[in-house]
Amino acid sequence: MVTTALEWLPGGGVTSPAGWRAGAVDAGIKGYGDEPRRDLAILASDTPCTGAGVFTRNAITGAAVSLTRERLANRVAQALVVNSGNANTVTGAQGEHDARRMTALAAEHIGIEPEAMLLASTGVIGRPMPMELVERGIAAITLSPDGGHDFSRAIMTTDSAEKQHAVRFTAAGHRYTVGGVAKGSGMIHPNMATCFCFLTTDAPVEPQWLRSTLRAVADVSINMIDVDMDTSTSDTMLLLANGAGGGEPVAAAHPAAGALHAALEAVAVALARDLARDGEGARTLIEVVVQGAASREDARRAARTVSSSPLVKTMITGRDPNWGRVLMAVGRSGAAVDERTTSVWIGDHCTLDRGTPADVDLTQVSAAMSGDEVGIRVDLGRGDETATAWGCDLTADYVRINAEYTT
Amino acid sequence: MVTTALEWLPGGGVTSPAGWRAGAVDAGIKGYGDEPRRDLAILASDTPCTGAGVFTRNAITGAAVSLTRERLANRVAQALVVNSGNANTVTGAQGEHDARRMTALAAEHIGIEPEAMLLASTGVIGRPMPMELVERGIAAITLSPDGGHDFSRAIMTTDSAEKQHAVRFTAAGHRYTVGGVAKGSGMIHPNMATCFCFLTTDAPVEPQWLRSTLRAVADVSINMIDVDMDTSTSDTMLLLANGAGGGEPVAAAHPAAGALHAALEAVAVALARDLARDGEGARTLIEVVVQGAASREDARRAARTVSSSPLVKTMITGRDPNWGRVLMAVGRSGAAVDERTTSVWIGDHCTLDRGTPADVDLTQVSAAMSGDEVGIRVDLGRGDETATAWGCDLTADYVRINAEYTT
Repeated sequence: MVTTALEWLPGGGVTSPAGWRAGAVDAGIKGYGDEPRRDLAILASDTPCTGAGVFTRNAITGAAVSLTRERLANRVAQALVVNSGNANTVTGAQGEHDARRMTALAAEHIGIEPEAMLLASTGVIGRPMPMELVERGIAAITLSPDGGHDFSRAIMTTDSAEKQHAVRFTAAGHRYTVGGVAKGSGMIHPNMATCFCFLTTDAPVEPQWLRSTLRAVADVSINMIDVDMDTSTSDTMLLLANGAGGGEPVAAAHPAAGALHAALEAVAVALARDLARDGEGARTLIEVVVQGAASREDARRAARTVSSSPLVKTMITGRDPNWGRVLMAVGRSGAAVDERTTSVWIGDHCTLDRGTPADVDLTQVSAAMSGDEVGIRVDLGRGDETATAWGCDLTADYVRINAEYTT
Repeated sequence: MVTTALEWLPGGGVTSPAGWRAGAVDAGIKGYGDEPRRDLAILASDTPCTGAGVFTRNAITGAAVSLTRERLANRVAQALVVNSGNANTVTGAQGEHDARRMTALAAEHIGIEPEAMLLASTGVIGRPMPMELVERGIAAITLSPDGGHDFSRAIMTTDSAEKQHAVRFTAAGHRYTVGGVAKGSGMIHPNMATCFCFLTTDAPVEPQWLRSTLRAVADVSINMIDVDMDTSTSDTMLLLANGAGGGEPVAAAHPAAGALHAALEAVAVALARDLARDGEGARTLIEVVVQGAASREDARRAARTVSSSPLVKTMITGRDPNWGRVLMAVGRSGAAVDERTTSVWIGDHCTLDRGTPADVDLTQVSAAMSGDEVGIRVDLGRGDETATAWGCDLTADYVRINAEYTT
């Protein structure tokens, strides 16, 4: 699909595409720790956008998820207000009221329609949003084309590093940029594993193609990572396209469709890898490629089961080339598996060759597992379908981070 | 269902029912460590039995699972040979041959038909069974009515304690005994999480009722525990009934059916709790009761999701009464859940009351979590169905045990 060259922009992010600005403040919502840290931010386009979202499948959702879902259904979107420190979840009617008021305040502050302001909240659950702090904070936010960095800092919680990427490409005679930012897929101090991923572009995009493309992109990026299998009540992925780059709206038959899809996928996959690598306590990124599956669903299921298996994760922690654990995980994934056609590679080393343990020097394989990224490849020998999933090793630090917090 | 009193037999196990004997040796199959440890054992009835089995759902299975499944389908069973140290899995045609030979040797040694000998193997995978050691070991086994203790030692791997129970009851004018033994649901050094659970009785039982009752018992015991979500290639649960207690074969309408079912369930649940409590690195047993579910499947799913959630497990490790993690797990379980009707108790303390955070002293709740067993109760407020699941906390020791082994 990709024939257009993608140019990665060093230090780029959500405000790299034309017509995007952002800003953030320390509103005091997090309310702990000594140093001031940003916890409230706005990301805005200068003009109205086409927008789409993918949300948590958890049956319990925060007020922000309901509100943002509703607004995207109305097909109006121009900006996003985000806070960390309070998830506004299990807060009842008061929570819904507060969510609407947050977006009204943010919209008024930057001068757009309230209905065009989206919302995402992460943090502690079951506690009312401190609206006085929110009101004061929003009033203090200044938007700037260089605000992507501040924005990415404001949505971080236990993340150890910022996660931002941007790519540029030329298609159909126009130069377009796609930017993205993400935050923490490990459990969020103090309550929830929340994953945010926000993508922006200056390409003009037809709404229906935007929605189906976002779903396809989510399925090969954010939906293929797993830090601890726990699904937050606030997981949110958004894509907003403002068209500032000019040209006709991109849809399926448009000459820029392939390049735009590839650019969105590249940024989303880069963010997904960042998220997996930065799982709580993680030292190693695990990339699992499953090939030779009878169906795409089988490939996805097998890849995700391997990348999220506690026994595979601890085998990576211990640099132990224990292919039996990989085979066990594939076997319990629900995919069609026959040990006689299954092969397993750890790094470049074949450890199981169509059901027969390979004659391999395990010391060498263990040495190949010492980097900060380990590849596992499984060929099921049953068909042509492939999928890639990412995870991280499970360390004593994960336990410490998640056990030591006291509500 | 239970109206008959069950008498627990202190120190009882698989040889407590009449007509059962067992024995074990150190055959050297484990082949590591300094002290001799038992790794090969036989459990046998003096007379032929009715038998049934429940096996791993992993698509990859060991040769022992295939053979035992086949023999139970033929409805002949009288004894069981078990080894630890080698799972005889991913061993191809040689593995199948070795499995048959193991049962033939064991059957000849104790003087029964080869077809009546069942087999279970756990340990390293992908390596041929050391048949010379097996042959020498089987020849050295002596059966005794007091051999249950030796048998339970021989099937232990990383288990920190033996798991045996027996109960006695009187029904339909006969006194019957049910015994059981289980081993390690935590990951087995060096390769697999394997769970064995073997039940014996001297009640006479009709084959079809035996099969359906074992399935029902497994569904509320062994199938409701979770140490690390990884499913072994060798998980095996067996029930053998020799009828030595006398009387007519028990079937659905038999006056002893209810009492026998209750006795089997009591022993299996006690073993399941032992297994969860002895998860690798675990310090605390977690018992999760979900009530008020719209369907039995919803109740089971929600209970298992809570008991296996890494965030719930680490919340128990940290003695943190973080009901938000429980709600999150219930929400992602797939069960019909509405936060407005959901209540959560930790120990005896209600922390969420039909969607509203309860006004509870969290210091007191945390103190209630300091024992070696923590109860979590969730009322979904959607119906009348209930289920109970067991798990254990996730500690840094789990990571150490599973990461430090090197193949």
